Amino acid sequence: MYSIDALNILQEWFAKLPGIGPKSAARLAYRIIEMDPAEVKQFAQDMYAARLAVRYCSVCGNLTDKEICPICADEKRDHQTICVVKDARDVMAIERGREYRGVYHVLGGVISPLDGIGPDDLRIKELLDRVRKEPKEIILATNPDVKGEATAVYIHQLLAPLGVKVTRIAHGVPVGGELEYADDVTLMKSLEGRRPF
Amino acid sequence: MYSIDALNILQEWFAKLPGIGPKSAARLAYRIIEMDPAEVKQFAQDMYAARLAVRYCSVCGNLTDKEICPICADEKRDHQTICVVKDARDVMAIERGREYRGVYHVLGGVISPLDGIGPDDLRIKELLDRVRKEPKEIILATNPDVKGEATAVYIHQLLAPLGVKVTRIAHGVPVGGELEYADDVTLMKSLEGRRPF
Repeated sequence: MYSIDALNILQEWFAKLPGIGPKSAARLAYRIIEMDPAEVKQFAQDMYAARLAVRYCSVCGNLTDKEICPICADEKRDHQTICVVKDARDVMAIERGREYRGVYHVLGGVISPLDGIGPDDLRIKELLDRVRKEPKEIILATNPDVKGEATAVYIHQLLAPLGVKVTRIAHGVPVGGELEYADDVTLMKSLEGRRPF
Repeated sequence: MYSIDALNILQEWFAKLPGIGPKSAARLAYRIIEMDPAEVKQFAQDMYAARLAVRYCSVCGNLTDKEICPICADEKRDHQTICVVKDARDVMAIERGREYRGVYHVLGGVISPLDGIGPDDLRIKELLDRVRKEPKEIILATNPDVKGEATAVYIHQLLAPLGVKVTRIAHGVPVGGELEYADDVTLMKSLEGRRPF
């Protein structure tokens, strides 16, 4: 079949990205071809520059373009409350709410034996080091799925002897959601986690 | 809010691509950050290389990395049958079928007054030049929507005086589709275009 090597290679790159199937990859590659060459050059340069600029905060493991991320560097935030999350996207998600004033600890994944990811592959040791210093509360904010739950349970077991307060984010019916469409486990968790009105 | 400039810039680039909303753009940008820097460098280089390599066939306007595209250069194909399409993606789509043995003419768009695209912005003059040479049949294969139909009608009016056979691709119920879910116009077109069994 008729095809252009350079275009196929570009399609393959796009197809490696999450949520991009072969048809979307083709559409993206064609869009690049339609763009002004100077614009594509800038896009390519900015992509590589972004990869080079971004690294991991030496304190919390969050993405940053500095040695220490702005959240860890912010003295106005509560450094005695550490919210433990899977990855930097979760930090961004919680930050969007503009409510949380503590700091974070990014694990860099969750325990997943099938994917070959054990506790040693995550930044758990670094978390324990931080906990030994000053914190009062560790909020386990891994996803409410099997891996996230298992990871939370594992970390909780390590933290328990250290005498720090460990909490887990609430599971329940999402705000704006409808009870009718919530699954059984979520509904049960929502009832279990009920609070005084 | 906490953010990283280089990452935001990359997100904005991705958000410019078709079918990529702000959330997808963020996910793609994060994926790039997670990749090996050498891999990102290669991706960026391949992207720019693809843009530079690909140009328009001087005969049919199809995308190619040569002066003349492989379809126009193929002497085994029927150069007296020209299939007129909107863009290079349509060529790829028809080529996937491996049935059509004629050549193509890529318009580079369709007439769309609201978008400021008139006949002069399309490769219609080039089509007339080709028709004056040798072709026997021109197949108008623009999309079966308002703009595609208008473009087909316009081109047909120009071709009529040249004494060439002009056909339009059949509109009807897609193979594998169900009558029940076909819209009224498609069903009507499907009946109008009925053929002996």
